[in-house]
Amino acid sequence: MLVVMDVSATPRDVEAVCAEIRRLGFTPHAMPGASRTAIGITGNQGPIEAQTIRELAGVLEVIPVTKPYKLVSREVRPDDTVIRLPTGAEIGGKRLSVIAGPCSVETEERSLTIARRVRRAGATIFRGGAYKPRTSPYAFQGLGVRGLEILDLVRAETGLATCTEALDEESLERVAEHCDMIQIGARNMQNFSLLKKAGRAKKPVFLKRGMSATLSEYLQAAEYVLSEGNYQVVLCERGIRTFSDHSRNTFDVGVIPAAKNACHLPILADPSHASGKRYDIIPLARAAVAAGADGLMVEVHDRPEEALSDGAQSILPDQFDQLMLDVARIAEAVGRTV
Amino acid sequence: MLVVMDVSATPRDVEAVCAEIRRLGFTPHAMPGASRTAIGITGNQGPIEAQTIRELAGVLEVIPVTKPYKLVSREVRPDDTVIRLPTGAEIGGKRLSVIAGPCSVETEERSLTIARRVRRAGATIFRGGAYKPRTSPYAFQGLGVRGLEILDLVRAETGLATCTEALDEESLERVAEHCDMIQIGARNMQNFSLLKKAGRAKKPVFLKRGMSATLSEYLQAAEYVLSEGNYQVVLCERGIRTFSDHSRNTFDVGVIPAAKNACHLPILADPSHASGKRYDIIPLARAAVAAGADGLMVEVHDRPEEALSDGAQSILPDQFDQLMLDVARIAEAVGRTV
Amino acid sequence: MLVVMDVSATPRDVEAVCAEIRRLGFTPHAMPGASRTAIGITGNQGPIEAQTIRELAGVLEVIPVTKPYKLVSREVRPDDTVIRLPTGAEIGGKRLSVIAGPCSVETEERSLTIARRVRRAGATIFRGGAYKPRTSPYAFQGLGVRGLEILDLVRAETGLATCTEALDEESLERVAEHCDMIQIGARNMQNFSLLKKAGRAKKPVFLKRGMSATLSEYLQAAEYVLSEGNYQVVLCERGIRTFSDHSRNTFDVGVIPAAKNACHLPILADPSHASGKRYDIIPLARAAVAAGADGLMVEVHDRPEEALSDGAQSILPDQFDQLMLDVARIAEAVGRTV
Amino acid sequence: MLVVMDVSATPRDVEAVCAEIRRLGFTPHAMPGASRTAIGITGNQGPIEAQTIRELAGVLEVIPVTKPYKLVSREVRPDDTVIRLPTGAEIGGKRLSVIAGPCSVETEERSLTIARRVRRAGATIFRGGAYKPRTSPYAFQGLGVRGLEILDLVRAETGLATCTEALDEESLERVAEHCDMIQIGARNMQNFSLLKKAGRAKKPVFLKRGMSATLSEYLQAAEYVLSEGNYQVVLCERGIRTFSDHSRNTFDVGVIPAAKNACHLPILADPSHASGKRYDIIPLARAAVAAGADGLMVEVHDRPEEALSDGAQSILPDQFDQLMLDVARIAEAVGRTV
Repeated sequence: MLVVMDVSATPRDVEAVCAEIRRLGFTPHAMPGASRTAIGITGNQGPIEAQTIRELAGVLEVIPVTKPYKLVSREVRPDDTVIRLPTGAEIGGKRLSVIAGPCSVETEERSLTIARRVRRAGATIFRGGAYKPRTSPYAFQGLGVRGLEILDLVRAETGLATCTEALDEESLERVAEHCDMIQIGARNMQNFSLLKKAGRAKKPVFLKRGMSATLSEYLQAAEYVLSEGNYQVVLCERGIRTFSDHSRNTFDVGVIPAAKNACHLPILADPSHASGKRYDIIPLARAAVAAGADGLMVEVHDRPEEALSDGAQSILPDQFDQLMLDVARIAEAVGRTV
Repeated sequence: MLVVMDVSATPRDVEAVCAEIRRLGFTPHAMPGASRTAIGITGNQGPIEAQTIRELAGVLEVIPVTKPYKLVSREVRPDDTVIRLPTGAEIGGKRLSVIAGPCSVETEERSLTIARRVRRAGATIFRGGAYKPRTSPYAFQGLGVRGLEILDLVRAETGLATCTEALDEESLERVAEHCDMIQIGARNMQNFSLLKKAGRAKKPVFLKRGMSATLSEYLQAAEYVLSEGNYQVVLCERGIRTFSDHSRNTFDVGVIPAAKNACHLPILADPSHASGKRYDIIPLARAAVAAGADGLMVEVHDRPEEALSDGAQSILPDQFDQLMLDVARIAEAVGRTV
Repeated sequence: MLVVMDVSATPRDVEAVCAEIRRLGFTPHAMPGASRTAIGITGNQGPIEAQTIRELAGVLEVIPVTKPYKLVSREVRPDDTVIRLPTGAEIGGKRLSVIAGPCSVETEERSLTIARRVRRAGATIFRGGAYKPRTSPYAFQGLGVRGLEILDLVRAETGLATCTEALDEESLERVAEHCDMIQIGARNMQNFSLLKKAGRAKKPVFLKRGMSATLSEYLQAAEYVLSEGNYQVVLCERGIRTFSDHSRNTFDVGVIPAAKNACHLPILADPSHASGKRYDIIPLARAAVAAGADGLMVEVHDRPEEALSDGAQSILPDQFDQLMLDVARIAEAVGRTV
Repeated sequence: MLVVMDVSATPRDVEAVCAEIRRLGFTPHAMPGASRTAIGITGNQGPIEAQTIRELAGVLEVIPVTKPYKLVSREVRPDDTVIRLPTGAEIGGKRLSVIAGPCSVETEERSLTIARRVRRAGATIFRGGAYKPRTSPYAFQGLGVRGLEILDLVRAETGLATCTEALDEESLERVAEHCDMIQIGARNMQNFSLLKKAGRAKKPVFLKRGMSATLSEYLQAAEYVLSEGNYQVVLCERGIRTFSDHSRNTFDVGVIPAAKNACHLPILADPSHASGKRYDIIPLARAAVAAGADGLMVEVHDRPEEALSDGAQSILPDQFDQLMLDVARIAEAVGRTV
């Protein structure tokens, strides 16, 4: 259920409606839009009686939401969500956002070297795993807190915002302390406890699509975060699992316009994980932007052959320069900038 | 790397080898077998020097393990693992294990009614979700601790062992306290933090296959649990995600002989989630046992139309009776019992 | 649309209804059943006027068919179709049918050797490719007519019925001349021209499921054959294409009860193509029969390492003996025989 | 095996090498390139003795081909293949090729109306099915020869080249007579008899990717056509079958750079079949061109609600105008034109 407030409604009207919703045993989610405020209603206790709300001051209309996801849907919020990080970086506006960096944070020196290169080429957010979800228990599991400290240093030295993955409650708390954006990885897309925890964090959440998630499941996973009160969620297509074996995963570029159609959250693309092959990454990055993606997450490493993880899919800084030039031209062709 | 001890090796010999492995900076995993003990070696610090170990007393041979999973592999332990629950129920022996019960624990009365029916038909373990991983944040999320208390009651009244899903660290601790076996669900198959935590629990772990996990990824997920010292893991095929739309998931029956070939852990089948359609469940249960499964997990509900979750795929107690009769005949045909 | 005739309806009544259907511009398909005759109506010209037919002599009722397939559906014909080959072999009755033989017909001597072995173990139909659909144009394409002549010889010497694949109109005519059953392979499941041609042949059609066909598409492919007047179609599950990589294809055992539920045609299983791995074939054969399959198609070769195609998935004659023993026990457990 | 001729080799040298290859029992395929000629060698009789060829006049080197496909591979022919149709339309050059038109040819008037509109927007090739492969035998199967005559008329009136699908040997002959390019559809991608027949036709072949074909299988299907002597093959990605359900198929955009990397044939994209949803088609068209596609095939209909097939995925002429404007901007961004 969604309450649409009149353009003339006052903050007091909005608060009165929220209070009434709470009184009825539900949770209100006030979402201010460009011209008017909408209030999403969630709760587990069956249908709400619309009539009492419809009659409150400032209420324009009360409309049912037909999708299994509510707060993320375009029905509830027609305007695009734009997320602003403390460094000034924005995700979801006219300018594309590019998140770049190594798969794992390895050393201070290497991180700074890569960060300076990607910043120069136009990236605004630095990535690097401190807590790594690895298929094998015997593979490198990340530097942990030491990795977060290196990310702090990168931020201080370069002005880039930082984003890194949280794997569980403990790492989520630490990531939220140190970084500008909390990544939830593909393998945890339906780790609902972690999603709820992220919904109570005060930082934006970068939620990757699970490798066999349908769009509806993906949006419901985002809904878990919003339903806890955190409306700052960024989606990211990173390839799905299919029979097709020319690349590590199949980059489902069509999910970008489909997600844009169904929901108001920004969506980025991760061509590095989608492809797993270096020669594919630039064409996929171009395709993603052409299809309407709001930005990219790209793995960049200056010595991929020495990388502690995912070396084969990392591009070199020079290739990243080329990627940014290519993407800038595509961005312009679709009315955007980098 | 795997150390195979001589049949004549003493417990002291085994301990001396373990001590040496620890001294070298690795972790030993002593696995007593029917005739001899094997010691798996894991650790993150590169290859181990085999020579110093080969010369210790009681060591028959030191062999490299070629698979990405080690402790779960048949190379390391040729004998089948058999898991014994405190109620006397066994998983992995000649007798098939049948886990049955409702999708969610709902009420005391309903749980007891169903439990008595499934016990009478031959089930030895009761299932019922107390913490439910639901696609939508607005769906019924389970009774939590109250659910666990109902499971305790079922156990006390019927003598059935209990198994329920843990979603995160907190619920895992509680499940480990109350129940005989901890379920890790398909959506958490690569929640590596949870797997490690389960590896430190003192109860057997029932690990469901992720819906897009390859066999190798699945076995590596199990390896996470074993590598923390908990060797009591039960696998369960529950259907994978494919294009095929005649059922909710595609029951990958062939993974059963493939898993048996590659690893020593017991593997059950869950025809309820695999199919999602009531008429399919008995044929799939028969197929699983014919293919070599060590047992079944089946959703049973006496009023599926009132179930708080998964009603459409639950079978009625009478259908469960039929299933058990059918399965008993197949079991006999493959040299097993129920 | 389906016309169900009264039990007392005479052949003349049936003919009069068919004539009326033709007069209205549609095609009647009279399908005599155990107790009464049904007449399927197909045609491209929009809905038929039921009233004029309902009033004809001997008509019990006129019912709409709700599925995209009609003549193959259980709605149209509730009884199982049983197909009888000239050798006396039956497909679809209580007794399981086992089709066995090498992937390709290679030499007279080898074919006879294998045929005698599989007959002794209980197979009733011999398979062997004379026209081979090969992924590469440079791979062995089969012996063609010479292969068919060898199949004739096998039939004459052993009394086994024969089944081989047709690839196009020309080979279909030749196969129909020489063999007892015409195979349409997975890659041609939606080769609609070939299906129509097979529908005009006078021999039963063995139609394999396409590797990415849904059940509905599969049944509509069979419908192409029936709609041309050939009601003798045998289905065969042979594995579908998914991400799962422990076997060559994923054996979709659940499609067997689903097909049985939706249509009246017999369905066999081909564990050889489904698995591609020798150790898997017996467990999959057992699973198929346990799930309700009407029989099996199995690749058997006495020297798989010398086979001109598919050696790795062929089992040895001794393994086939074991398979037949195992399957016989499962068959008995589900109330059937071999 | 591949023979690379020296830049100074004469046509007579090339012929002498071909003669020697034939003498040894193999088939030579001379492929003139920008600067030098390569001669592919195919045949079924085992490895060829390289030494005798290496010593012939004009031979620079003899190199083994490591892929299962040969004549289509970049190893054999590093230059892009460019195909020229009699109307002057080119496929594979700097200018993108756009094939547009209705799913099925319906009437003369409608075909002409649509053709004029798409030509005006920049399409150079008209599509429209005369022989339709339909999942159901009761669906509209196309106008057949009458459809081909309408395509002739479109060509005469508009100057557009024509392309339509052939389903079998008979329709292939007719299509080759009437049209400028012969389409082999996704369902027939492994109809090897049809591929061989197309390899003996004198017209370019437009070969769509099968819905569950790997890239290697796809290129081997193209190899069937080339191995019969027809080197004019155009590839087309049209979506693959996966679990992802936000669109009819999953558009595998990554196969475009992968195919470009592996083979020298042009590759187009068909966003209409890939998506099945009108709002997706323009973004997918942009993505395809950004990823490096050599052009597009798009379904356009002026009255989609009245279309005899695939109305839901056809775009309106006005939308096609927009698509062409959008695509022109992307083309420019990647250094191409429309």
